[in-house]
Amino acid sequence: MKMTDSINKLAHKFSTLPGVGAKTAMRYAYAVIGMSEADVEEFCKAMLDVKHNVRYCEKCGNFTESDVCDICRKRPSDVICVVTYPKDVAAMEKSHSFHGVYHVLHGTISPLEGRGADDIRVKELLARLDGVKEVILATNPDVEGEATAMYIARLIKPLGIKVTRLAQGISMGSDIEYADEVTLSRALESRVEL
Amino acid sequence: MKMTDSINKLAHKFSTLPGVGAKTAMRYAYAVIGMSEADVEEFCKAMLDVKHNVRYCEKCGNFTESDVCDICRKRPSDVICVVTYPKDVAAMEKSHSFHGVYHVLHGTISPLEGRGADDIRVKELLARLDGVKEVILATNPDVEGEATAMYIARLIKPLGIKVTRLAQGISMGSDIEYADEVTLSRALESRVEL
Repeated sequence: MKMTDSINKLAHKFSTLPGVGAKTAMRYAYAVIGMSEADVEEFCKAMLDVKHNVRYCEKCGNFTESDVCDICRKRPSDVICVVTYPKDVAAMEKSHSFHGVYHVLHGTISPLEGRGADDIRVKELLARLDGVKEVILATNPDVEGEATAMYIARLIKPLGIKVTRLAQGISMGSDIEYADEVTLSRALESRVEL
Repeated sequence: MKMTDSINKLAHKFSTLPGVGAKTAMRYAYAVIGMSEADVEEFCKAMLDVKHNVRYCEKCGNFTESDVCDICRKRPSDVICVVTYPKDVAAMEKSHSFHGVYHVLHGTISPLEGRGADDIRVKELLARLDGVKEVILATNPDVEGEATAMYIARLIKPLGIKVTRLAQGISMGSDIEYADEVTLSRALESRVEL
């Protein structure tokens, strides 16, 4: 769409956000025009604040605004849950079921894309294992996530630490009719006695 | 989701954009964390630029960065196309079929929401009619858009100016099977000889 230069430029910026196409970007740009100047300034401040204040926790690699994140500071560190990205920490926390600390890998091992174990935070994980009783591997149940979990398990198990993986099975509220065959076969293998 | 204060604040800001829910807002906030500082600063500049530079054209009410917009400056003004919002101008321009000037009402008449003719730019339209041969009413084909078009037509027709309305019918590429009955009946009424 042909608009004034400033509007086109802003729409282009919005289109760099994930999942935002040209039309949505233009819609967002219109919304900015409709905001009060104070609102736009606050919006900008919020963006710059995030960029300036947010960094990675020295211990776990999660987002934090101090050197060590709240979770690392307040919780017992004898159980570590290993996740791929900071957003996975947020998802786990929403379940209110885990009360230990996290370790964020910031990626998966992916030979196809040329990412090896040195490109993710595996070394940092190994350096944290003193006194740890259990490492829960909560990488995604896809090829890369599985490979990464297997790799880490092979490193940690010999140290005598319990290594577990999130259970796989059919999800809550899903329909067995539509479950894929791999998921169903795993759910069957891991069936539990009632 | 529980994240650091800065991230939550930014996500909240993103959630004020149209159609952005909590999850999408958080996704955008993560994307900002992943941007370079220069990119974030440019993004902010683009937002502030839009807010500072973009205003309404003195003549037609479309977005512009000078006093009078490019369209008003360059095109013959004897045919005026009346639209509801600036984004409708962009949509019309994309069709490359109209070569006159526009008039943006900035709203519709809506008794239910307490918006009368004085709340939209009708007076400004009447003040522009000197030498105008045709006024095309391109408000939306919904209740408010129709009412607004009828109201304006009643004001302008007595001045001896031709008043037209965009044709209504089935849209290009649509399926007659699924066309609603009102659209089909209007398409039938306005059928054209081949």
